[in-house]
Amino acid sequence: MPGSGKSSIGRRLSVRFGLPFLDADTEIEAAAGLPITEIFSRYGEPHFRDGERRVISRLLAGPPVVLATGGGAFADARTRAAIQASGAVSVWLRCRLPTLLKRVAGRDHRPMFLNADPAEVLQRLMTARHPLYAEADLVIQCTDESPETTTRRVQDALEAYRPPARLPVALGDRSYDIVVGEGLLERAGALLAPVLPARRVVVVTDETVGPLHGPALRAGLEEAGFQILAELAVPAGEASKDFSKLQSVLERMLAAGADRRTGVVALGGGVVGDLAGFAAAVAMRGMPFVQVPTTLLAQVDSSVGGKTGVNLALGKNLVGAFHQPRIVLADMATLRTLPPRELRAGYAEVAKHGLLSGETLWRWCEAHGAALVAGDVAAQAHAVLESCRLKAAVVAGDEREESAEGGRALLNLGHTFGHALEAESGYGGDLLHGEAVGIGLGLAAALSARLGQCSQELPGRVISHLEACGLPARIRDLPRRHSASALLGRMRKDKKARDGALRFVLLHGPGEAVTTGEVSPAMVESLLRDEGCEA
Amino acid sequence: MPGSGKSSIGRRLSVRFGLPFLDADTEIEAAAGLPITEIFSRYGEPHFRDGERRVISRLLAGPPVVLATGGGAFADARTRAAIQASGAVSVWLRCRLPTLLKRVAGRDHRPMFLNADPAEVLQRLMTARHPLYAEADLVIQCTDESPETTTRRVQDALEAYRPPARLPVALGDRSYDIVVGEGLLERAGALLAPVLPARRVVVVTDETVGPLHGPALRAGLEEAGFQILAELAVPAGEASKDFSKLQSVLERMLAAGADRRTGVVALGGGVVGDLAGFAAAVAMRGMPFVQVPTTLLAQVDSSVGGKTGVNLALGKNLVGAFHQPRIVLADMATLRTLPPRELRAGYAEVAKHGLLSGETLWRWCEAHGAALVAGDVAAQAHAVLESCRLKAAVVAGDEREESAEGGRALLNLGHTFGHALEAESGYGGDLLHGEAVGIGLGLAAALSARLGQCSQELPGRVISHLEACGLPARIRDLPRRHSASALLGRMRKDKKARDGALRFVLLHGPGEAVTTGEVSPAMVESLLRDEGCEA
Repeated sequence: MPGSGKSSIGRRLSVRFGLPFLDADTEIEAAAGLPITEIFSRYGEPHFRDGERRVISRLLAGPPVVLATGGGAFADARTRAAIQASGAVSVWLRCRLPTLLKRVAGRDHRPMFLNADPAEVLQRLMTARHPLYAEADLVIQCTDESPETTTRRVQDALEAYRPPARLPVALGDRSYDIVVGEGLLERAGALLAPVLPARRVVVVTDETVGPLHGPALRAGLEEAGFQILAELAVPAGEASKDFSKLQSVLERMLAAGADRRTGVVALGGGVVGDLAGFAAAVAMRGMPFVQVPTTLLAQVDSSVGGKTGVNLALGKNLVGAFHQPRIVLADMATLRTLPPRELRAGYAEVAKHGLLSGETLWRWCEAHGAALVAGDVAAQAHAVLESCRLKAAVVAGDEREESAEGGRALLNLGHTFGHALEAESGYGGDLLHGEAVGIGLGLAAALSARLGQCSQELPGRVISHLEACGLPARIRDLPRRHSASALLGRMRKDKKARDGALRFVLLHGPGEAVTTGEVSPAMVESLLRDEGCEA
Repeated sequence: MPGSGKSSIGRRLSVRFGLPFLDADTEIEAAAGLPITEIFSRYGEPHFRDGERRVISRLLAGPPVVLATGGGAFADARTRAAIQASGAVSVWLRCRLPTLLKRVAGRDHRPMFLNADPAEVLQRLMTARHPLYAEADLVIQCTDESPETTTRRVQDALEAYRPPARLPVALGDRSYDIVVGEGLLERAGALLAPVLPARRVVVVTDETVGPLHGPALRAGLEEAGFQILAELAVPAGEASKDFSKLQSVLERMLAAGADRRTGVVALGGGVVGDLAGFAAAVAMRGMPFVQVPTTLLAQVDSSVGGKTGVNLALGKNLVGAFHQPRIVLADMATLRTLPPRELRAGYAEVAKHGLLSGETLWRWCEAHGAALVAGDVAAQAHAVLESCRLKAAVVAGDEREESAEGGRALLNLGHTFGHALEAESGYGGDLLHGEAVGIGLGLAAALSARLGQCSQELPGRVISHLEACGLPARIRDLPRRHSASALLGRMRKDKKARDGALRFVLLHGPGEAVTTGEVSPAMVESLLRDEGCEA
């Protein structure tokens, strides 16, 4: 904004960092050989903005500098996108109106203040531009303190700044980024604005997560001028993934005025992501969708890949759609409010990704899994990034799970057993999905070993690792006794069974998995009985 | 089948048509320089079938002949596809077992009967192959009558044969054909088999259409060996396009054992097509889908383009998916059971397509529309084909209605008014969708004329044509009085309204339509009041 101190702070900063200071306006005038007012009046604003964008892009492509830009530059969508794409760190010097007014007092010869009340002009500019400036990487609240103090605060912020990691999911015109970092909820508006068609959203969450993280998300969205048409909370837990909740979410979204350009933001775990994503997929035949996963399970697995849906009485996820999000925000801060048992359960999917990825990630899991479930934030961030990297690569190769063999179906490692155990346990919280997957991983390794597909040591290695991470690792660890034939019956009804044949993912070793429909039920039954199941 | 008489009938036929007679087996032996038994034993069946396919393809690419093929040729999926693609007319000489047994009695030296009971061998072959032979263009039931009699019947059938018209909808790997003709239900299995992954379907219909056309469809499917897992009938009428019916269709489909390779066949009008198509879109995240539209409205409009969905209390089609069918079968015979009022209502969409297509189709409408609604089958078939041709071209250019201007939205000509009238009339049958669209077409033309977009004559031309076809053509023709402001309120809530601005399709003339968001509500209101609406 005029009066925010970009030149004064910028110059001081350049001295501190030992970098040249450049002013975009000066550079534009030099390039054009005309004063800016003249460019404006002769060629109009669109022409000026094009030139401005070219000059800024050129300067940012060169060696490091401190660059001050006119307030209209960052407010221009294409220039802002160019700055964001350049790798520069953008800083918004945010001042309140009285501060700005005091500073521009001597400058009312500026064309923008000609025959106008400066307070009114500035207020109008602030209303229009603050939501756009909110997309800057750093926001520094400036007061009437000395320029030296402000400069030091900017320098501190720049030195402390760690940009969130971004992982692209390559799906043609449905490509998107997974953003992994700290404090992303507070930055949600800035992160969402470039990927949504309008600054208008509906937030879907659950009654547990909403009170914990809803306020930060709301503040982050409103900072960038987002209008939140509705915040819909469903009861926490798998029971919300049903048809009546879907209908109610759809009706409430539409009654709140959502249209085809309104974004649907899922704030929560897998249940909320699946439910809200499916609602977004089918409301008006498709609304833009954003995942803000707040559980480890959702961050490493369910929020990535576009699978959405609800359950029927006949089985889980029997109704749904492939609907890719526009962006996934995995905020590590949200994991701090996650109950330890859920953190551990989510870790089972990390271990699965380790086994699918190869020795590097699997050995990392063995070295850092226990620290991760104990709360090590760096380990959590690494696990989320690497899990998403693996999943993104698999999904990019087989978006709609249509490969006859391999492809997306490999992600079901441990899941044929896991889904059967979950179904038998009744989804009531006795056995979490991740816990069932953990046991399924051990069984898949054991089955692979029995079939001579992998070393005889692998099952033990898998089971000890899961035990070290505090997960139930074997069926016999469960409080409830399971029946082998009941589990087999469940597996036969699995959505992935083909013409009644069981489908399994087998391991040759870490990083080497295959899908097969060739395993005999008798072999599976004898494995289950040896693992302590009843007949 | 062995003993069906392909050589004896084929030779006689070739004399009658004055064409050469060729036997594929003889040609293969000549090409290979080996007897067939030798090719089989030396190189195996796959090798033989490849050679057979090459020889048959070569012969069918040449000048017209009568060609007899071995029974295994048409049973081979790739050879069958090659024959179907060649443009040849395929004839199945279908005999019952006793007839075949009598004829092969002297031939038990054949390798296939070696050390085996011929009745058993033939029965096994019939069970395996009859469903595949059913894909032949003509099926001639042969008895113990003389070869001359059978030959005459084959000749008669060939001379009477009119292949159904096929119109491709070009959507990349989601491309499909619209088949328009007579007696397609009886041929459904043959038409569906090449485009579905398995011979297994669920049929969704309504309680009116099911009893009328369900038996013919069932027979047609079973002829080609299709297993019909369930026939689900919902009550006829718009009220079935709701969430609870969707859930019940999904649950019944899945309980009947439908899997991802089972086809969902919609037999009925727009309601059944939209409901069944949406169920197919979301069941297990996508099942293959087939449209068998039995109303003119569905044949010319709703069955083509992949829009599926259900209604919410807040509005029509607010929940849905784009899910393209694998094929559309528009059987003209089904229109004969359609109530005249529904036939007329469906015609409004034909008139719309005429206005969108250009002077040629619009003049055809003016010349033949009245005969069409009076039951002229040739006119109906032409209208269905030309409507689908226009719609297919528009959909191919803008599958998901994402064009900022023009594109698929042009198909909404007359619909902004029409949807508002329908909503005000309450979907109870007082005003059919097509009737509302007819009135909407007149209003869209009148609005275009008022805005100086088209000639002052066009609205009168549209209205007189609709009147000539027995449709209510003006709001003042309706028994119920409408309120201009209530209609405007409905238009503002239309799914297509953007940021509250009304969206209309305007006409410059037949074949020249544009979308606009620039029409003032006051202009619309004054038009509605001039047309007899209350304030």
